[in-house]
Amino acid sequence: MDDRLAYVALGCLMEPGNRALGERVTALGPVDALHSLLAGDVSAEVSGAAVARLREHDPSNVAKVAIAHARRLGARLVTPADDEWPGQLGDLVRISQPNAPRIDRDTFPPLCLWVRGTSVPLNEAMQRAVSVVGARASTPYGEHVTSDLAYGLADRGWTVVSGGAYGIDTAAHRGAMAADGLTVAVLACGVDRPYPASNTGLFERIADQGLLISEWPPGTAPHKHRFLIRNRVIAALARGTVVVEASARSGALQTLRRARALDRSATAVPGPVTSAMSVGCHMLLREEGVRLVTGWADVLEEVGSIGADLAPLPRGPENDWDSLDPTSAQVLDAVPHRGGASAEHVAAVAGVSIREALRSLGLLRLRGFVVDRDGSYCLARR
Amino acid sequence: MDDRLAYVALGCLMEPGNRALGERVTALGPVDALHSLLAGDVSAEVSGAAVARLREHDPSNVAKVAIAHARRLGARLVTPADDEWPGQLGDLVRISQPNAPRIDRDTFPPLCLWVRGTSVPLNEAMQRAVSVVGARASTPYGEHVTSDLAYGLADRGWTVVSGGAYGIDTAAHRGAMAADGLTVAVLACGVDRPYPASNTGLFERIADQGLLISEWPPGTAPHKHRFLIRNRVIAALARGTVVVEASARSGALQTLRRARALDRSATAVPGPVTSAMSVGCHMLLREEGVRLVTGWADVLEEVGSIGADLAPLPRGPENDWDSLDPTSAQVLDAVPHRGGASAEHVAAVAGVSIREALRSLGLLRLRGFVVDRDGSYCLARR
Repeated sequence: MDDRLAYVALGCLMEPGNRALGERVTALGPVDALHSLLAGDVSAEVSGAAVARLREHDPSNVAKVAIAHARRLGARLVTPADDEWPGQLGDLVRISQPNAPRIDRDTFPPLCLWVRGTSVPLNEAMQRAVSVVGARASTPYGEHVTSDLAYGLADRGWTVVSGGAYGIDTAAHRGAMAADGLTVAVLACGVDRPYPASNTGLFERIADQGLLISEWPPGTAPHKHRFLIRNRVIAALARGTVVVEASARSGALQTLRRARALDRSATAVPGPVTSAMSVGCHMLLREEGVRLVTGWADVLEEVGSIGADLAPLPRGPENDWDSLDPTSAQVLDAVPHRGGASAEHVAAVAGVSIREALRSLGLLRLRGFVVDRDGSYCLARR
Repeated sequence: MDDRLAYVALGCLMEPGNRALGERVTALGPVDALHSLLAGDVSAEVSGAAVARLREHDPSNVAKVAIAHARRLGARLVTPADDEWPGQLGDLVRISQPNAPRIDRDTFPPLCLWVRGTSVPLNEAMQRAVSVVGARASTPYGEHVTSDLAYGLADRGWTVVSGGAYGIDTAAHRGAMAADGLTVAVLACGVDRPYPASNTGLFERIADQGLLISEWPPGTAPHKHRFLIRNRVIAALARGTVVVEASARSGALQTLRRARALDRSATAVPGPVTSAMSVGCHMLLREEGVRLVTGWADVLEEVGSIGADLAPLPRGPENDWDSLDPTSAQVLDAVPHRGGASAEHVAAVAGVSIREALRSLGLLRLRGFVVDRDGSYCLARR
């Protein structure tokens, strides 16, 4: 058994985030951690359900079935053993509170992520990402502000991260996709059965242009408690989280508090004080010292400065110029070193068709090599 | 010549707030300060216009004419020599910056105030006061929030202070008066010619139920620069200032910054990020660390705690129970020591008519002896 299989087997044993299991994996590595459990070294923190599963199923087989199932669905598996694993998830260990209730104790990083969508490596997609979250029962004001915000971020080459709910989550994905940017939905269920089902059209578009990711293997149902567990991943993946609209008890407030605990930028958009959907935002701004943002420019000011303090993100080999396909490398060479150029100009300089140039420029933009300023392509500062 | 006459004479010499004049008055007292000027000891800081006025007019006569004129208009004069002078205005000396442009240097306290309206002593009216300011070109949202805020403050026995402009100022006065509270308009012109003239109906109501006050003698025109000079008085009179709506360059921002420089509570109400009339508020909240408030309860939380840090306010003899008229003293005795009672109940216990009880309870409320909680009268904590 290799590390990847062991990660999946362990991931199938318990709900994600378990502190006891996470510490054991950190101490022993995934393979020996699994063997110790199979050998009966089962601490009190490992749930009864997990013990039953260990006794009744062959964990290695469970993992293999899950991986095969995912492959049939067109989903791939990413584990900490893979180059494209987003290393910033490791920060989640820091915010786990040993003696707190489960939801604040079991905040350990995911053991694996199931991914459906474009082939952009996950760590690259998450190198410059902002999470935009908020209420399901949003107002037209909140949706308008969210689309604008996500459009602006995506248009400047930032990945937008959110959940899959109606309201603010949906507006965030729509805004990012309208800018032809990369958008990522972090789900609390299998990537094959995104919830809510009536948002299927959106999920299909995200699978086409962006990424659907989940800690739970394909087929997992969206149980209510899973949304709060999932929120820590939304907070940890991005350099900052923005809450656009939230009622006083919205789950989005928890996501924002997680982001702050992780020393990431944590901001909120104000709204009319007469709107119940802004009460949660105003609470954060008034009582919790969260910083106010009015749009994408304010958010970038925050994550820009915060970003400089973050540990350097892991870079896989895919991150190098060498990894580009020949046409894309040719197109990249044709982008001027100073100022910008239109796609037509780049195509002419590179000696490729405009269609090829546009395809390559889109790829180069997603991978952070170039930025698109209103149709003028420039080299990204790296 | 007495101190009062000297204050008025000095006040008629120069635009209010002059630092050089203020320092001289502090050092010598008003009478000797005026004599020193008349004797030709005219420093460079005293303007040419003032020197001309000193030469061409008898300052004592100018003062007497102004006082007589005010009396004919039903206005009264309040100077630092009077018991009812609001001592907190003295804090304005602290924020004067010696080498700054005039507007930030000449922030000294007024030398006198002209007052038109109810006979409530000025220092009592200002003992528990909040300034509510904002844009002239307010939105329906801003006006709604302002009326609610002012109503809530006034209903809890707080005096509302503002300017006399359309928009937020007007909504503040209307809200306070709807709660039968005390409202104070601080004007940048004579109390006999409030500006804008088309707001005359409002000014008449304020003169009836509240107070119109000004540093400028009756007859003074509302020159544009006087509004910014006036703002320091709005900030200094109250324990805190709230900005409800303000564009990026609104004068209300200056008032709020003055309040903060004076160590008073400085707060702002957020609004839609899509509204130009909230841009100034969001600037204060985001860039200047101003605290967000969503309504009167938040404001009271701020001024409550700030209030405890303020120097004890001067208390004239009128502030004692002894100073009450016999009926009011009788009614006050009938208000229960624990919980509240209706006006009917109080009237029965006091043995006075319901009409007398209501009149006395209104007076007792304005003077801070009792509070009215939705028609239930309780003793105020003193």
